[in-house]
Amino acid sequence: MAICYQPPVKPICVRPSTTFSSASKSPSLRCNFSLPFTTQIREPEPILVSVKAFAPATVANLGPGFDFLGCAVDGLGDFVSISVDPNVHPGQISISHVFGDASSKLSKNPNWNCAGIAAIEVMKMLGIRSVGLSLSLEKGLPLGSGLGSSAASAAASAVAVNEIFGGRLGPEELVLAGLKSEEKVSGYHADNVAPAIMGGFVLVRNYEPLELMRLNFPAEKDLFFVLVSPDFEAPTKKMRAALPGEIGMAHHVWNCSQAGALVASVLQGDLVGLGKALSADKIVEPRRAPLIPGMEAVKKAAIEAGAFGCTISGAGPTAVAVIDSEEMGKRIAESMVEAFWRVGNLKAVKAVKKLDRVGARLVS
Amino acid sequence: MAICYQPPVKPICVRPSTTFSSASKSPSLRCNFSLPFTTQIREPEPILVSVKAFAPATVANLGPGFDFLGCAVDGLGDFVSISVDPNVHPGQISISHVFGDASSKLSKNPNWNCAGIAAIEVMKMLGIRSVGLSLSLEKGLPLGSGLGSSAASAAASAVAVNEIFGGRLGPEELVLAGLKSEEKVSGYHADNVAPAIMGGFVLVRNYEPLELMRLNFPAEKDLFFVLVSPDFEAPTKKMRAALPGEIGMAHHVWNCSQAGALVASVLQGDLVGLGKALSADKIVEPRRAPLIPGMEAVKKAAIEAGAFGCTISGAGPTAVAVIDSEEMGKRIAESMVEAFWRVGNLKAVKAVKKLDRVGARLVS
Repeated sequence: MAICYQPPVKPICVRPSTTFSSASKSPSLRCNFSLPFTTQIREPEPILVSVKAFAPATVANLGPGFDFLGCAVDGLGDFVSISVDPNVHPGQISISHVFGDASSKLSKNPNWNCAGIAAIEVMKMLGIRSVGLSLSLEKGLPLGSGLGSSAASAAASAVAVNEIFGGRLGPEELVLAGLKSEEKVSGYHADNVAPAIMGGFVLVRNYEPLELMRLNFPAEKDLFFVLVSPDFEAPTKKMRAALPGEIGMAHHVWNCSQAGALVASVLQGDLVGLGKALSADKIVEPRRAPLIPGMEAVKKAAIEAGAFGCTISGAGPTAVAVIDSEEMGKRIAESMVEAFWRVGNLKAVKAVKKLDRVGARLVS
Repeated sequence: MAICYQPPVKPICVRPSTTFSSASKSPSLRCNFSLPFTTQIREPEPILVSVKAFAPATVANLGPGFDFLGCAVDGLGDFVSISVDPNVHPGQISISHVFGDASSKLSKNPNWNCAGIAAIEVMKMLGIRSVGLSLSLEKGLPLGSGLGSSAASAAASAVAVNEIFGGRLGPEELVLAGLKSEEKVSGYHADNVAPAIMGGFVLVRNYEPLELMRLNFPAEKDLFFVLVSPDFEAPTKKMRAALPGEIGMAHHVWNCSQAGALVASVLQGDLVGLGKALSADKIVEPRRAPLIPGMEAVKKAAIEAGAFGCTISGAGPTAVAVIDSEEMGKRIAESMVEAFWRVGNLKAVKAVKKLDRVGARLVS
């Protein structure tokens, strides 16, 4: 999709990094930067005065899908409200409020806040120079939980700003905006922010240029995530430092085949196969699980309670299991919470949530 | 599928390794060995006096699908004829003829011939002790070409023996029989013999127990392989020795994501995506291509001529490209042959063949 600024308002000069082309009809999305330096396009006007967007939590890595696969989880996430604000300098954004348990840990400087960074990036992409915006962030997700907290803020914010100006950017451009935020916070990885924006399962195929593949889990099938978050800090940096620098060929082939099986299971709606692949990582999980007290026992408890598979969500400490029934999910969650307490001496909170198939969206 | 020997003839004692259970209705096939040592089952009688089976060539590895993914190619392959022969000692097999260009290099000792090894294994699985068989092998595939020559002989033979006794073994059991042959010839890898028996694309998910996933390429879409085999020897051992022992994390993640994209492209019938993934291996192909004179230029020529992707077939030296039209395939083949000659100073033979969706089958 090439961006065509239809209703001419004010001519502005757009740099290459603000323009895109992509094949948005295909399940594979791609972004190229192709317009010449001096292309004249028009700054869009706001079509709404105020919007509120929601973006879901995400489970990245998914075992053998390490660093390239993620999916969205319904009913958990962040909200971002954006208003046109004449008191804010045109072309800039101001963060008015940050609500939620994690609010005290978050900066209100938009250059150091995920929602702020993504909003600024979308404004740049759209070429907004005449309108100032005010942003309010409502954190529904805890920080550093392994549930894509930073990505959810960025995704909600990117969608909100885009929608206030008529929704001219496609999902892939919004992912690029979100990536600017992720880059500052946890590294240039799209496996949280892509599913947070696009919903469902997303495979990150390439970064140069960005290429994303939607993996459609069949609509007629149910998929529930059992999410159990212990009261434990697992900083992404530390969890990344635990990874091996080099991987033996046998383990590489094994994980590749499990990644292939995981992708096939998602597309075929084979939950048993999905769970088995999720559990089968021989490279990342074996290094990270020992750093989260009780994690190995929690995985064992989940499987024994009937889960199809279990692994670490993102960089942890949340454990994620998959199942096809909410009722079963609740029983599995109980077992996992119990195991965190019994073996890891950690209190944990639980949730059983469906796959989110929509991604970030306006809620008002 | 449990094996039920229905028409009782002669009671025999079956060892565990001759019995199987599997979920053959699922796209994921699995073999377990579960019957106790002393189970009494019946030796089946031949229902035919003579059969002839064909098994197709196969392309294994498929770039990032290294060592776990393969597919079958129609119109190229080996034929095996099997006859009940009262002159052969009961329970044994004798190789009467080996035809074809490669025949002089192949042993007629069934213990050292791929077709013989697989036939013996199927006879063991079925518990054949009262009937002797005579085998004739017609090699359609050259040896050491990277087109699954040994697997085709084993697959055709396994299917032929199974069918002469009523076809009681399922595809997964036949793959296990073929694996016994592959183990002796080129290593315990099922990525040739599984698609040679099952047809289409097959993902080898596990060996202990053997688990195979069929990946159905949409029936309504065409997929052509352009196969160009230079006059050059690329021994599997040498090609395997060229592989890196350790792989950096960045390359591991890249290849895993491309493997996922490859699997998704197959299932979605996305030939452009399939070709791109096929071409994207950063681990195996970069080590092996320089050992085949002209290979890098051949790949470049294929892409420039319009191929969606190109890589080394199996361990080489055949180059394989993919395209959706036979006409285009022929033009691409010309370019590849020309590049092998121009850059590698190698003569090469070409073929443009469809995906084989059936696998090994009786032809008379």
